[in-house]
Amino acid sequence: MTMDGILQGIRSAVAEAREKVPLVPSVTNTVTINFVANAQLAVGGSAAMVYLPDEGRSMAEVGAAMYINMGTILPIYEETLPETARVLHEQGKPWVLDPVGIGIGSLRERILCSFMQYKPAIIRCNASEAIALANLWRLESGREKDGVRGVDATDSVLEARRAAVALARWTGGAVAVSGERDLITDGRTTAFSTGGSALMPKITGTGCSLGGVAAVYAAVASPFLAAMTASAIYNLAGQRAEEKAKGPGSFQVQFLDELYLATPEDVAGNPLELEEEIG
Amino acid sequence: MTMDGILQGIRSAVAEAREKVPLVPSVTNTVTINFVANAQLAVGGSAAMVYLPDEGRSMAEVGAAMYINMGTILPIYEETLPETARVLHEQGKPWVLDPVGIGIGSLRERILCSFMQYKPAIIRCNASEAIALANLWRLESGREKDGVRGVDATDSVLEARRAAVALARWTGGAVAVSGERDLITDGRTTAFSTGGSALMPKITGTGCSLGGVAAVYAAVASPFLAAMTASAIYNLAGQRAEEKAKGPGSFQVQFLDELYLATPEDVAGNPLELEEEIG
Amino acid sequence: MTMDGILQGIRSAVAEAREKVPLVPSVTNTVTINFVANAQLAVGGSAAMVYLPDEGRSMAEVGAAMYINMGTILPIYEETLPETARVLHEQGKPWVLDPVGIGIGSLRERILCSFMQYKPAIIRCNASEAIALANLWRLESGREKDGVRGVDATDSVLEARRAAVALARWTGGAVAVSGERDLITDGRTTAFSTGGSALMPKITGTGCSLGGVAAVYAAVASPFLAAMTASAIYNLAGQRAEEKAKGPGSFQVQFLDELYLATPEDVAGNPLELEEEIG
Repeated sequence: MTMDGILQGIRSAVAEAREKVPLVPSVTNTVTINFVANAQLAVGGSAAMVYLPDEGRSMAEVGAAMYINMGTILPIYEETLPETARVLHEQGKPWVLDPVGIGIGSLRERILCSFMQYKPAIIRCNASEAIALANLWRLESGREKDGVRGVDATDSVLEARRAAVALARWTGGAVAVSGERDLITDGRTTAFSTGGSALMPKITGTGCSLGGVAAVYAAVASPFLAAMTASAIYNLAGQRAEEKAKGPGSFQVQFLDELYLATPEDVAGNPLELEEEIG
Repeated sequence: MTMDGILQGIRSAVAEAREKVPLVPSVTNTVTINFVANAQLAVGGSAAMVYLPDEGRSMAEVGAAMYINMGTILPIYEETLPETARVLHEQGKPWVLDPVGIGIGSLRERILCSFMQYKPAIIRCNASEAIALANLWRLESGREKDGVRGVDATDSVLEARRAAVALARWTGGAVAVSGERDLITDGRTTAFSTGGSALMPKITGTGCSLGGVAAVYAAVASPFLAAMTASAIYNLAGQRAEEKAKGPGSFQVQFLDELYLATPEDVAGNPLELEEEIG
Repeated sequence: MTMDGILQGIRSAVAEAREKVPLVPSVTNTVTINFVANAQLAVGGSAAMVYLPDEGRSMAEVGAAMYINMGTILPIYEETLPETARVLHEQGKPWVLDPVGIGIGSLRERILCSFMQYKPAIIRCNASEAIALANLWRLESGREKDGVRGVDATDSVLEARRAAVALARWTGGAVAVSGERDLITDGRTTAFSTGGSALMPKITGTGCSLGGVAAVYAAVASPFLAAMTASAIYNLAGQRAEEKAKGPGSFQVQFLDELYLATPEDVAGNPLELEEEIG
């Protein structure tokens, strides 16, 4: 894919999400569920959140794409999540996985293991989560498994590059690793997206809602393009919001406004670099 | 009821909610639960949210009115919701139902069926949900049952008029159908409330929180007056918020401010039209 | 402890929370979970929320302190909460309890009873909840047990003083009773913190998030100092936010900004009075 083709693809993804208003349901955590829904609406999607097994299945059938975030998991997720992912996979629907919290709890681990066969179109995570997921799936991460400290990354994005490439090659989709410089890869080409704001980690849910927004774009573009578009609009909106914000409260308000106001040209104009993966 | 009587009733409802600070508990979805509580507080109510069966019963006993929203239902709701509605009905307490998500999932359908006998004082919904609920309760909707697309209405408010009238005649309460022009009916008189903003569907929870606010007014006014008051203050606050907002983030902040600042005169002055239902 | 020692301790707590970024997980209600996390981040902490028994245990082991709020409890909490509190107690980790909703429901009561032996470092509550918890634990509250009205206090802070002192003497930690004038006691010295805003009770979650912030400070200071620091920064941020807010929507945004912007000197400069408890 050439840079020109990618930029044209990003423009199209931003525009089409607004025109088509795709329904993109989620099973996501209660901490940031409101922010996820509002971010999805701001970029043009339609949101719906569920918890029960038959409702996950039903949403997988009617949705254009879906978002599964492992934050605050509930006992019923043992049935809901593998079943929902199975239907998505069978129907060839793109879905986005955020493996937040990998490493705490046994149900979480069992569910994440089951996802390996249902190949999420996009895995959205931080560096430590990418390494931990690659290790859980016994892929080549380049790093021994180590502990995860809550929801924060203790590894750098570049340390997770090998894990991200391995995950993308397994799923045949894309992996987006958030950091100061976001890494997005389809296993062959790796893109770096910059921008954002130091205030982004000072509010909860920028990562979660980025996953939800990537799912909206996955309804109208390929996984790799969708993940690059989502990272680009987040980096752009974060940078613009920071200019007008005085702290994390006003930053979040401004950030949703900027997601809503960003044009296809704006998003395609956010800095992006490409590198080819060898081997 | 004359227009003068209605406008006086609206003024009184807005003022009394602020004076009496009625406790109006909810069982509501996790997506917009914070917005529901904040909207209820902004118009003068006191909020409390629960999930467990004996806590639903307890809230039905101590609350002045109650709000049940079917968004993100949990397994325990199989016990909690019918039991809570039963106590509300037995004690003659007004309660507001938002049948969001009708059509996805079997537990959701069983619970909604059980509500028929416990007659909610107000049903707050969109056009497609009004038609689907009338069909589920085997009332005369004027339309065959059809699919529901997530949480969005695919029918217009006027297409749901017959269903809304049938529902209101069954419950003896009111039905409020949200749309560009809100329809509120008690089965004999139908009111149309206008205003609002194109940004309202770009944030999640304007419908849910409208139901929670209608429950606050139902604690101090008749179901029909309460539903008209809630629609009026929402249309007013939406219009005023839009003038100051730059996008959905600032719109939501401004909207809560406007709910809080609206006077009884302001709310009664929002455009309202009445039509009599025949037959 | 002298007033000078306390003010120095408050300065240190504010500064150290920002330097160390302690991980302070929570099990907390779905109504205000987002606000709790954002308030914890704004004062420098790192947040993580869970529901499941083994995840509560895991968080108790890796967290520097923890927050347990009894708002919207779920069936699984029967296992999660006593087990999490047990691990916290065994490991000598400070944890903050918010007994919101005490008096409604039997599971809630059983869990609160089990907490007596696991001695929370800080109990954060309103006046009615302090009295009800002291009665539940059969401590000397100075008041007969009476009903609790949803989440609102019907008693004044001074009426709860005896209960607060009794609770603090039992736990060996601190008790913070929120009101117009906040009371914080370790059972020997009682501090009164003033400021805040009449808009604070008009948004949901100022109490809950105060508990979450107290847990962040408990990771870097003694329970009594942590509770005083949390009350002081809340009273300061509330007062500052009110000056710029037009209603509850803009107040909440501004409040998070002010939490983020407050310096150690600012917080130590918020009005504080000390009284010795006799007997």
